[in-house]
Amino acid sequence: MSFANPGRWARVRSMLMKTHTRSLLSPLFHTRPVNTVRRQEIDFDFKAYMLQKVNTVNRALDAAIELREPKNIHEAMRYSLLAGGKRIRPVLCIAACELVGGLDYAAIPAACAIEMVHTMSLVHDDLPCIDNDDLRRAKPACHKVFGEHVALLGGDALMACAFEHMVASTKGVSPTRVVRAIEELAKSIGAEGVTGGQVMDMSSEGLSSEVGLERVECIHLHKSAALLEGPVVLGAIMGGGSDEEVERLRMFGRCVGLMYQIVDDILDVTKSTEYLGKTAGKDLVADKLTYPKVLGMDKSKEIAQKLVEDSKEILAGFGTPKVAPFIAITNYIAGRIN
Amino acid sequence: MSFANPGRWARVRSMLMKTHTRSLLSPLFHTRPVNTVRRQEIDFDFKAYMLQKVNTVNRALDAAIELREPKNIHEAMRYSLLAGGKRIRPVLCIAACELVGGLDYAAIPAACAIEMVHTMSLVHDDLPCIDNDDLRRAKPACHKVFGEHVALLGGDALMACAFEHMVASTKGVSPTRVVRAIEELAKSIGAEGVTGGQVMDMSSEGLSSEVGLERVECIHLHKSAALLEGPVVLGAIMGGGSDEEVERLRMFGRCVGLMYQIVDDILDVTKSTEYLGKTAGKDLVADKLTYPKVLGMDKSKEIAQKLVEDSKEILAGFGTPKVAPFIAITNYIAGRIN
Repeated sequence: MSFANPGRWARVRSMLMKTHTRSLLSPLFHTRPVNTVRRQEIDFDFKAYMLQKVNTVNRALDAAIELREPKNIHEAMRYSLLAGGKRIRPVLCIAACELVGGLDYAAIPAACAIEMVHTMSLVHDDLPCIDNDDLRRAKPACHKVFGEHVALLGGDALMACAFEHMVASTKGVSPTRVVRAIEELAKSIGAEGVTGGQVMDMSSEGLSSEVGLERVECIHLHKSAALLEGPVVLGAIMGGGSDEEVERLRMFGRCVGLMYQIVDDILDVTKSTEYLGKTAGKDLVADKLTYPKVLGMDKSKEIAQKLVEDSKEILAGFGTPKVAPFIAITNYIAGRIN
Repeated sequence: MSFANPGRWARVRSMLMKTHTRSLLSPLFHTRPVNTVRRQEIDFDFKAYMLQKVNTVNRALDAAIELREPKNIHEAMRYSLLAGGKRIRPVLCIAACELVGGLDYAAIPAACAIEMVHTMSLVHDDLPCIDNDDLRRAKPACHKVFGEHVALLGGDALMACAFEHMVASTKGVSPTRVVRAIEELAKSIGAEGVTGGQVMDMSSEGLSSEVGLERVECIHLHKSAALLEGPVVLGAIMGGGSDEEVERLRMFGRCVGLMYQIVDDILDVTKSTEYLGKTAGKDLVADKLTYPKVLGMDKSKEIAQKLVEDSKEILAGFGTPKVAPFIAITNYIAGRIN
């Protein structure tokens, strides 16, 4: 696979292809000793932090979409949005804002917007013409409750709502920064982000594992990493971060995003439907191009662990204990395979 | 049907319910004699104007989405976007910008964005779970060429692209105005705009014509008028229009948008598939709630004509010959039923 346009994703891919040598990521790595990072891991109360942030996010999401006419589309939007996801993306968005010196309220609308586009992608992915999945977040999928047409249109409305909410509800941030954040949000969900990745993913079903690591990495960077890069970049922009801070967080988002999808690939094989809250084993059934398929389970776990280390090294570059939530979230995601 | 939230569409509906008395629209009506409008109709070369503007729009759309990887989603997006629609919405957007004193280039990215969200709504509407239509713009529908999953995800990507393109390509407009335009674009396509209208439309299939005019008008204002209001409002914002100019154009967009859908209802009954470039008679087959069903053909034509007159009276309020394109487009839309 070659990219005709030497755009963003070609650069991402080539950068992350170098993960093992760090040659291109190196300007963002810092010499801060790793034991400083370890210290922050010990002192930080992740559970209390998540509880507080997730409550903030859930309240904001509940208020963002009222149950108004036309009732069934708003019900479908609220059903999927308030179904109790882990809220990793919005929490990362708020954490990024605070890391660069912003106050949480500046990033809350962007955090909600990210969760809305993420939910939209799940609602559409579950439809019969894509993954045909009946279960999502341990509940019946949106289309099983409201019908396919309402799920499709409700997903569309969630995406529109994300943009509307972000511009209408963001306070205390310059319009220049809001405009920049809109562009990042759109890229994360568009043809060079999640939706493009989903199309590539489906086109690769049934392909031999010999097509290689490059293709599966490209799919994962599009379909998953884009929606972990998005929140941290948006948060940093809304928090008034410098270009260097935004780009450092972008690198972190890509590393963690790729790791997230490798972990997801592994969980699909090793865990039950009950544990996941979504149908297990479906990558195998659809013969998806996954890391375990291409590299085997041991090598996949090894790469995931390598990406955890890379993520932490990028974070160490900030030289502040405020990176503790990012380290904890990285550990949490990686820890799911244990 | 009642609106729990006294929002924008409740106001639109109540305003347009008063079309016949003009009581609420009256502040926007002007005493300029109608024969001034007539004069402008005679002097204006509509065909040459449209040719020039449509060429501008088509060139801009072609450049807006390059054929890059992942190829099939970009191909699907370009296939539907460049399938040769009438381009009424983007032309109205540019015309609105020029009417309020802006230069066309300021509105061209917004005009493209409007056409992208409009195309996205058509691609999704044609899917089997909504209208299940095989024909669009006299060509096979997107999902017939690329498959349902690519059409669904390509539509999603078109919506994301609309927002990205508008912020990335707009030049010479303050970020404050761009942010305001983003909110309007999102509203036009969201749950209180096109997608909400489409859900209401489907929920009303098979209902007796006795449910009344209010419901069909509400559906039409959501599913169609929102995407004719959007372009003129966006154009006026990008062109530096005053609040009064923006609101006057909003009223015009609503009147013409409602008229557009009534004409569409009539054409579905009276014209052939060949003439329309999309399947004729499908409202009858699906037993949709249309103006002809609720009011009969003669009364529907009468209301369409009344909305033409109202639209022209709103335009006369601008007191400038620059409204000529709007008058001509109004006549063109209305003239399709003759």
